Amino acid sequence: MDENQEALEVQFQQLQEALANSEMKRFREIFLELHIYEQGQFYQAIEENQRHIMYAYLSPKEMADMFDVIEEDNEHMTEYLAEMRPRYAADMLAEMYTDNAVDLLNTLDKKQIAKYLSIMPAESASEIRELLHYEDDTAGAIMTTEYVSIVANQTVRSAMYVLKNEALAAETIYYIYVVDQENRLVGVISLRDLIVNDDDVMILDIMSERVISVHVGDDQEDVAQTFRDYDFLALPVTDYDDHLLGIVTVDDIIDVIDDEAASDYSGLAGVNVEEVSENPVKSAGRRLPWLITLLFLGMATASLISHYEELVSEASILAVFISLITGTAGNAGTQSLAVAVRRLAMNDDKQNSFLRTVISEVLTGLVTGAITGLTIFAIVSIWKGNPILGFVIGMAMMCAITVANLAGSLIPMLMDRLGFDPAVASGPFITTLSDLTSVLIYFNIASLFMSHFIGS
Amino acid sequence: MDENQEALEVQFQQLQEALANSEMKRFREIFLELHIYEQGQFYQAIEENQRHIMYAYLSPKEMADMFDVIEEDNEHMTEYLAEMRPRYAADMLAEMYTDNAVDLLNTLDKKQIAKYLSIMPAESASEIRELLHYEDDTAGAIMTTEYVSIVANQTVRSAMYVLKNEALAAETIYYIYVVDQENRLVGVISLRDLIVNDDDVMILDIMSERVISVHVGDDQEDVAQTFRDYDFLALPVTDYDDHLLGIVTVDDIIDVIDDEAASDYSGLAGVNVEEVSENPVKSAGRRLPWLITLLFLGMATASLISHYEELVSEASILAVFISLITGTAGNAGTQSLAVAVRRLAMNDDKQNSFLRTVISEVLTGLVTGAITGLTIFAIVSIWKGNPILGFVIGMAMMCAITVANLAGSLIPMLMDRLGFDPAVASGPFITTLSDLTSVLIYFNIASLFMSHFIGS
Repeated sequence: MDENQEALEVQFQQLQEALANSEMKRFREIFLELHIYEQGQFYQAIEENQRHIMYAYLSPKEMADMFDVIEEDNEHMTEYLAEMRPRYAADMLAEMYTDNAVDLLNTLDKKQIAKYLSIMPAESASEIRELLHYEDDTAGAIMTTEYVSIVANQTVRSAMYVLKNEALAAETIYYIYVVDQENRLVGVISLRDLIVNDDDVMILDIMSERVISVHVGDDQEDVAQTFRDYDFLALPVTDYDDHLLGIVTVDDIIDVIDDEAASDYSGLAGVNVEEVSENPVKSAGRRLPWLITLLFLGMATASLISHYEELVSEASILAVFISLITGTAGNAGTQSLAVAVRRLAMNDDKQNSFLRTVISEVLTGLVTGAITGLTIFAIVSIWKGNPILGFVIGMAMMCAITVANLAGSLIPMLMDRLGFDPAVASGPFITTLSDLTSVLIYFNIASLFMSHFIGS
Repeated sequence: MDENQEALEVQFQQLQEALANSEMKRFREIFLELHIYEQGQFYQAIEENQRHIMYAYLSPKEMADMFDVIEEDNEHMTEYLAEMRPRYAADMLAEMYTDNAVDLLNTLDKKQIAKYLSIMPAESASEIRELLHYEDDTAGAIMTTEYVSIVANQTVRSAMYVLKNEALAAETIYYIYVVDQENRLVGVISLRDLIVNDDDVMILDIMSERVISVHVGDDQEDVAQTFRDYDFLALPVTDYDDHLLGIVTVDDIIDVIDDEAASDYSGLAGVNVEEVSENPVKSAGRRLPWLITLLFLGMATASLISHYEELVSEASILAVFISLITGTAGNAGTQSLAVAVRRLAMNDDKQNSFLRTVISEVLTGLVTGAITGLTIFAIVSIWKGNPILGFVIGMAMMCAITVANLAGSLIPMLMDRLGFDPAVASGPFITTLSDLTSVLIYFNIASLFMSHFIGS
């Protein structure tokens, strides 16, 4: 890849020169030889005045091919569109795959969307308009309408003929969908099947009638799961009456899987890691809501300790172990949380697993708590020469860890039951909540044994 | 999907009956109509004695097709192999795509691998042996050798002829790789290109000579990134001298992306979420190493507080705010950690971003710390009627958050520089470390102002 990178640098340099010297022919020669992704890298690396020359040198279709690949990281897309002449931008949007054009338009406000739709060819505009309707994060929102469909009552030869004509416009030609007169999905055949069968074989005889499809309103994460299960390159999307509406392709599913992973990760950390800004004030603005909310939960813990201040002033040694107990319980709770969220994501039959997961986490908490508690009992007994204090700390540790595991598993499970995304239950929330329960447990146990260790 | 599910249940029932009544023909009719993934679901749902009948009813090739899809969740794969006759198992392994057979064999011990390789056809055994060499998590370890390659000096017609013959054995036929006499990769052509061009066109004239390939030793995460960038369905894998060794297909990349996400998530939580067991003792065994390690780090915090015990016994009010300060700083540190790990994963030019990220996180810490500190200053001043105490808590909070952000961003950055996976820097580690620094900051600031608020 490194040699490639160097060769690419040289070509980028040549492209810049061609733009500077107004050598359109030379520019097109070098540029169109590049892979589309590399074209996008060049386009995104240059200045606005250079991009203006590119709009003059390349057709809307050529620009559309490139935008089909770069639209995913859409930070500057709105600016790019704004700097093109509206007619050029509209033509480019019309030439893009419909799903990508829709993604791009969705970054604009309604007035601008209407403007572009009004200038572009009517057919493209109506296709785009249809896709704009679908709710975010559904199969409808990520599907494209550029698929190949045929009727069953024809030979492989005639199907190949249809395919040749549609091959350049379709987003994938590797699955061909078979529909009836009312455009209902009745079968599927792969290009591989077409290739290995003789020209005179009827499609009806070789198509698979067992078509796996997704419903247009299905959650995109469920669609991703179907891709994982079946290892497909594309899946058809249908309405309630089995009419074929579009297809979802695997490259869009990779984006869905990435987004899903980033959102689970963000949930656990209590911060949206996808909106990365280097402006500290903006970053702070996004993180503060969580921090301040948790600060108030933390205040509950502080006022609880305040309630026991008398106890602390009599035995200041108790203060020494507050952060050890809350910290360790918080760590255990975070582990439970992550395991529970993961199990929810993986498990299909959720009915059984609710109680099983919670019980298993509580038992795990008892075991880890017992061992951690024994360890700290031994350490404190020796360090402070006070086995009763050691017992109090060890016992509190065990109970606090068990309760933290209960909270860490129960809360995401309950959220899932109530229809919320369990991944939103963040690690910081669990640790802050577990601070509260740990302190409660700790001071209650300490009060019970107070008279026994205070004399030491 | 729900109707499908019901229809499937009925068919599973019929399959069970066919097995029970020894109706081989009926079983094969229903079973082979199912999608391979559904075959796998049935196979994994039945009892061992029923599976034994299936081995008699299905050929090793038919079993191999199914194993190609189910090998990913390989929990029980070893048992399945063990219950087949060795000859049958070896034949099945030989019929599977080489990459999947290798994955499956890698779950066994060396002696068993050698046994299967010795009974299977020599050609398959040598292909598998070659792939077994490659290091885990490299392109070599996930590639397959079932690709279609041709020479450039032929027409589209003759290339299509080659393709027809290889179509059934190849894992993908949608890219055809063009090689020279020494099997060096010189071009690539998609099946789409073959279809749209006339039969007499030379491959040399239409192939793309700009082939994006990965090196056999490349990390699988880098390979996944190339798939994301270029939206490919498959990528060729080459050695140092550009010899074509195999291809990586997009379905394997989805597994890589899933694994990567699970490992980042696990890192943040301090627990391996992929090894989910419902046995509490086993789960505890996996979580304890982290918990006990962090317990000792927590002991450092405890002994630090112990050092200030005198101070606490004079002003027990200080104990009230320990968990609030450590908790809030820990939350902020976890946010920083997640953002830094994410930025490392996304960013290619790491040279610049090291300092930029750390500085930006520290500044974000200052802003969040200042606002959180002011909030807590106001609350404590009113609650305890003691603005000097409020100032101490607020000041400590601000410093602790800033330091936590420093640690949360600096540690993963340093780990990355030293060649470790930054995602291993776990949230629990950062919070426990931040407990220590927070306590240090808190008691130092408290000592400075001691004389001012102790009187109250």
